[in-house]
Amino acid sequence: MELRGMPVVKKMAEIDRVAVEELTAKGVIPTLAVIRVGEREDDLSYERGLMKRFDSVGAKVRSIVLDLDVSEEKLIETINECNEDKDIHGILLFRPLPKTIDEKKVIECVSPAKDVDCMCLENIAHTFAQDNEGFEPCTPSAVMEMLSANDIDLTGKNVVVIGRSMVVGKPLAMMLLKKNATVTLCHTRTKDLKGICQKADIICAAAGSPKMVDASFVREGQVIMDVGINVVDGALCGDVDYDGVKDIVEAVTPVPGGVGSVTTSVLLRHVIRGAQKSI
Amino acid sequence: MELRGMPVVKKMAEIDRVAVEELTAKGVIPTLAVIRVGEREDDLSYERGLMKRFDSVGAKVRSIVLDLDVSEEKLIETINECNEDKDIHGILLFRPLPKTIDEKKVIECVSPAKDVDCMCLENIAHTFAQDNEGFEPCTPSAVMEMLSANDIDLTGKNVVVIGRSMVVGKPLAMMLLKKNATVTLCHTRTKDLKGICQKADIICAAAGSPKMVDASFVREGQVIMDVGINVVDGALCGDVDYDGVKDIVEAVTPVPGGVGSVTTSVLLRHVIRGAQKSI
Repeated sequence: MELRGMPVVKKMAEIDRVAVEELTAKGVIPTLAVIRVGEREDDLSYERGLMKRFDSVGAKVRSIVLDLDVSEEKLIETINECNEDKDIHGILLFRPLPKTIDEKKVIECVSPAKDVDCMCLENIAHTFAQDNEGFEPCTPSAVMEMLSANDIDLTGKNVVVIGRSMVVGKPLAMMLLKKNATVTLCHTRTKDLKGICQKADIICAAAGSPKMVDASFVREGQVIMDVGINVVDGALCGDVDYDGVKDIVEAVTPVPGGVGSVTTSVLLRHVIRGAQKSI
Repeated sequence: MELRGMPVVKKMAEIDRVAVEELTAKGVIPTLAVIRVGEREDDLSYERGLMKRFDSVGAKVRSIVLDLDVSEEKLIETINECNEDKDIHGILLFRPLPKTIDEKKVIECVSPAKDVDCMCLENIAHTFAQDNEGFEPCTPSAVMEMLSANDIDLTGKNVVVIGRSMVVGKPLAMMLLKKNATVTLCHTRTKDLKGICQKADIICAAAGSPKMVDASFVREGQVIMDVGINVVDGALCGDVDYDGVKDIVEAVTPVPGGVGSVTTSVLLRHVIRGAQKSI
């Protein structure tokens, strides 16, 4: 079975559309401020995707563009304006920032209540604690949304997470743990990764290594969540060798069209939650 | 082999004594403020242990005792006084607090720079990120100190952590991961915990379940770190059936006399670090 993102996106949009309507009736239009320094093609492409997704449910994206040579002071001033603006419910800051800017310092200027992609320490702590406060990072949340939308129960399941980053691997492990999975965190220094993966019920690949999870890592009955986004010979591919595993395992997410496509919907949902909390 | 805490405590004390001497020569005596509400016997006993350990290297513990019916305002005022007092380098707040007090709110009043046992969100985030900033919780740090002092390399090792609490299991998993271990987080909902433990190189038991890790969980060559502290029939015991496993495994920590005895030394080290940063 191919686990596609679009059915999940559509399910989420049905709920989100109603929530936005209710907010709009109260005079509140859920709005994300995107702060972008420069004109990087990746950022522009992501921004266009955001605008389309937000627009489809009646929410808004406000794009704030700063010059590449913007000062740290000016960037912080811009963030503070967004923090104080009651019509903005979420702030997304494209990274990496120019090297002249202290990224850690700037990130901490974003109000935790508007930090919808979990950049700042307060939301990172809530993600670790899994205390249902704050905002969790969007990509691992998208994995959880896909598992939930496909009725994949996690209690007692052995889940292998490949990759220990702060944007995917580690937060995803905490979310899976909260759902009572037994979680094994693997990485570049793991020995016998193949053996560990073969024993798993679910594999979440977030290693940033093109097609590394191939047929030799998997067995029948498994669910494979591919969080990788790599470009090889000009084409997108994940961390999973999709064609190699698809006829062996129970279910696998494609790249593109899998987890990545749900990430924007999670961000939208966070902005809606921010708007709901603001009234 | 029995992995006792005392040799580690002594090794740490040698280094700490020199550090305290250097600080004292500069007019700074590393000082921990213990804020205690009421006269709970557990707290008093722990406080006496702290005083003895701190005293042995020339550091100080200042005990601040508040009545059981203390108001939230008064407690926060006391914390703020400690935050502002330049002669205090660490603050330990005994918990649980009386139910009339909002514990979460009070904890966040402790300055992160003096939060030497990682209670507040900022230090929790640093522990999750493992970015070498802030203070990590003392008990899992004691496990790491014991592994390190016994030259137990973690790279590529399969480590099973039993228990997913915010004071031991989850932070310990992050610390082990930082040292390149492959970490499996297990808990009450884990299936075939015995089988998972048997395959591990190292088992860290922090489940709060007396003697649950018995001979059937282990095999030869393993290292067993027992973080449990339970009272059964008036006697202390860990989460590991020490007598049952000691002749099978390579090394195991006793309870008492194991990990627990190192915790206070970690706290002392944190206070010294706080004092060093204050000048």
